[in-house]
Amino acid sequence: MRVLGIDPGLTRCGWGVVDGRPGARPAAVGVGVVRSDHTLALELRLLELHTAVTALVREHRPDVVAIERVFQQNNKGTATGTAQAAGVAALAAAQASRPVHWHTPSEVKAAISGSGRADKEQVTLMVTRILGLDTPPRPADAADALALAVCHVWRGPTQDRLRVAALATGAGIAQGPLTTARRPPVRASRWQGIGSAS
Amino acid sequence: MRVLGIDPGLTRCGWGVVDGRPGARPAAVGVGVVRSDHTLALELRLLELHTAVTALVREHRPDVVAIERVFQQNNKGTATGTAQAAGVAALAAAQASRPVHWHTPSEVKAAISGSGRADKEQVTLMVTRILGLDTPPRPADAADALALAVCHVWRGPTQDRLRVAALATGAGIAQGPLTTARRPPVRASRWQGIGSAS
Repeated sequence: MRVLGIDPGLTRCGWGVVDGRPGARPAAVGVGVVRSDHTLALELRLLELHTAVTALVREHRPDVVAIERVFQQNNKGTATGTAQAAGVAALAAAQASRPVHWHTPSEVKAAISGSGRADKEQVTLMVTRILGLDTPPRPADAADALALAVCHVWRGPTQDRLRVAALATGAGIAQGPLTTARRPPVRASRWQGIGSAS
Repeated sequence: MRVLGIDPGLTRCGWGVVDGRPGARPAAVGVGVVRSDHTLALELRLLELHTAVTALVREHRPDVVAIERVFQQNNKGTATGTAQAAGVAALAAAQASRPVHWHTPSEVKAAISGSGRADKEQVTLMVTRILGLDTPPRPADAADALALAVCHVWRGPTQDRLRVAALATGAGIAQGPLTTARRPPVRASRWQGIGSAS
């Protein structure tokens, strides 16, 4: 399964492409950041981001686009712009007939580090190890996007199975951390096939 | 000047097209609501909305698209979806090379009714009178979109003049209510040229 992870933002939108499957070591295919000029009109910034995500989907042909679920109680000043960035990224996926899955920051942190409260440096460190990269992806938005893609590779099918089970039994969807068992052993290896930032 | 007003939302997105200029009575050209099924995946709802706004811009060729500025502190549960709806509407405008202007709900209420705290029924009543409609536009989202377009017709150029004046004098932009003088006399007349809801 190939996943394009998107850490949405107007000023910096991180993206990362990962190949993998649950229980196996994932491989990084590409990573980067889409930037837009804060002096541009909002609609033009959204247009730049949409154009960039459309090009990424066309180039990498992901099976799924995983986007960070934005909560409006955080960073009130930028939450609207972040939500709009996430919206046009999801639109670009839908226009290319790619399904979109949403993961919260704490789901991503838990999947990657075993703790929903890991800080940005810990996430970057774990992503670097899990994907066997020589150097940590920078800026943190790029690392977060790779983390999101890895999270989806490991958690996505589990979530789907839980949803099916919940529908079958009429129970709610289990929400507990499902991370430790599905985290593969971390080994040092080469940073492979990482494309340039766009 | 022709303005397409958008009251963004995922479940109901109001739209209204108005022709007018400051100090004159505006005319309604079209009004309606774009709805999307809440059981659809979010990215497919955004795709439906984007497709609809793209079609509206192509059909009505507005000079400006006016969108309600969303604040995340209101209606926390739906603010993210509303912001995303506003984002894909702004994107559709940008893709058609139409400038986007944003107005807050209180700006719209002040422009239409003389009070920034008017309720939904008052806004609907005033829009019906100002545009000389036989029946009030329903639902309220459609009336709000017309109100937004009227607000832009009356306030937009004033805001631009104030911005230019502020830049020239180095002063901040005046924020006071500018509505009473520029509200035209209200007369009863025909509901003219209102298109069907899409």
